[in-house]
Amino acid sequence: MTTQESTEPYHLVSFKLCPFVQRSVIVLKEKEIPFNITYIDLQNKPDWFLELSPLGKVPILQVGEAVLFESAVIAEYLDEVTAPSLHSSDPLIKARHRAWMEYASTLFMGSYHLLNANDETIFETHRQELKQKLATVEQQLGEGPFFADEQFQLVDAFYAPFFMRLQEMDKWVTLDLMVGLPRVQRWANALLQRSSVRQSVATDFAELYRAKIKQNTASLFTQLKTGSMI
Amino acid sequence: MTTQESTEPYHLVSFKLCPFVQRSVIVLKEKEIPFNITYIDLQNKPDWFLELSPLGKVPILQVGEAVLFESAVIAEYLDEVTAPSLHSSDPLIKARHRAWMEYASTLFMGSYHLLNANDETIFETHRQELKQKLATVEQQLGEGPFFADEQFQLVDAFYAPFFMRLQEMDKWVTLDLMVGLPRVQRWANALLQRSSVRQSVATDFAELYRAKIKQNTASLFTQLKTGSMI
Repeated sequence: MTTQESTEPYHLVSFKLCPFVQRSVIVLKEKEIPFNITYIDLQNKPDWFLELSPLGKVPILQVGEAVLFESAVIAEYLDEVTAPSLHSSDPLIKARHRAWMEYASTLFMGSYHLLNANDETIFETHRQELKQKLATVEQQLGEGPFFADEQFQLVDAFYAPFFMRLQEMDKWVTLDLMVGLPRVQRWANALLQRSSVRQSVATDFAELYRAKIKQNTASLFTQLKTGSMI
Repeated sequence: MTTQESTEPYHLVSFKLCPFVQRSVIVLKEKEIPFNITYIDLQNKPDWFLELSPLGKVPILQVGEAVLFESAVIAEYLDEVTAPSLHSSDPLIKARHRAWMEYASTLFMGSYHLLNANDETIFETHRQELKQKLATVEQQLGEGPFFADEQFQLVDAFYAPFFMRLQEMDKWVTLDLMVGLPRVQRWANALLQRSSVRQSVATDFAELYRAKIKQNTASLFTQLKTGSMI
């Protein structure tokens, strides 16, 4: 669909490569909540969108007449109004998860820097920084496979889009980010196999993201893992 | 106190001019929860702090052995564990408030830009941008005096530190940010008179912030509202 009209009670608006809307989609899929999604062109934002979004930013969620913005707010709302919750009922555990949900933003920033590095030295600096941040996450993980062990929770939905982008990038350039971080590696694998995560992107996501990698990161390297990028 | 030892169940760690820890302090004061606070020197972070804070960022809240980070997470936790809540019980209203709590960050960024502008043209650009953002907030306000009218809620605690900084800056340079925005003006006045807000900063806050203004913003202008800054 190309307009803001929605036949479902929940209507998400975003663009196809946005990692933040993906969190909301994962929550919706986990809870089997019907929804519509409209992808807009960020370079050419439609007027109806600009009227709805106070910062002109995605994602937004329309709930009837109401408009919610900010991915954490949207995810928390969707979780709250549909049982069972993807949060612990213990306020301190919930707060700890929320803190680490916020921490995920620094990883997204790291992957963004990798994707936009304009020389190999800068790429390597960002790679090392990101590896250090993942080592911090390693210390937070238990027996797995998820952040809070057996149970898939909201915090998992917040990291999955990051690992999905890393997986795509890792097909072309050597990242080696999870070497020596077995818990992070196990967590990433579990998330990437999860049905809600696999279904959380547009069908042409891999193609679009690959185009970005080809244009940016991969152009820095003469040696690619996968021959040429066609 | 200068170490991380605390005699209360809640121990905040921050620096004196941090607007984000101030949100947590306002919540603690509103709810009359006993706590300790330790101010650290951001230029010379103590080792015990770096061990506790995953990003080396303030504020953090120690709750017994647990460490929480990110001001929104800390404020939501404190609100959840102590009645009465400063949130609406309606999930959609709560989510709308949380979205506007996030929006406050863009205002803080605006005041930071004003404080760090290095020429008058840049200052004026940021002033206009900030005014535009406040006009967006104006449309969200009702009969007042607070964001959700009569009741002081979490969203109010999130904006109060911003208005406090603006008030200090406005003593020295002409900001005129609230002209034509009577609801924002009324809200700011109500927040600045609130006891929890007035008690939410260190005793030397005004002096420290004035030193920043003198060093940065005010140095751009030959005409100051208040003669010389002594």
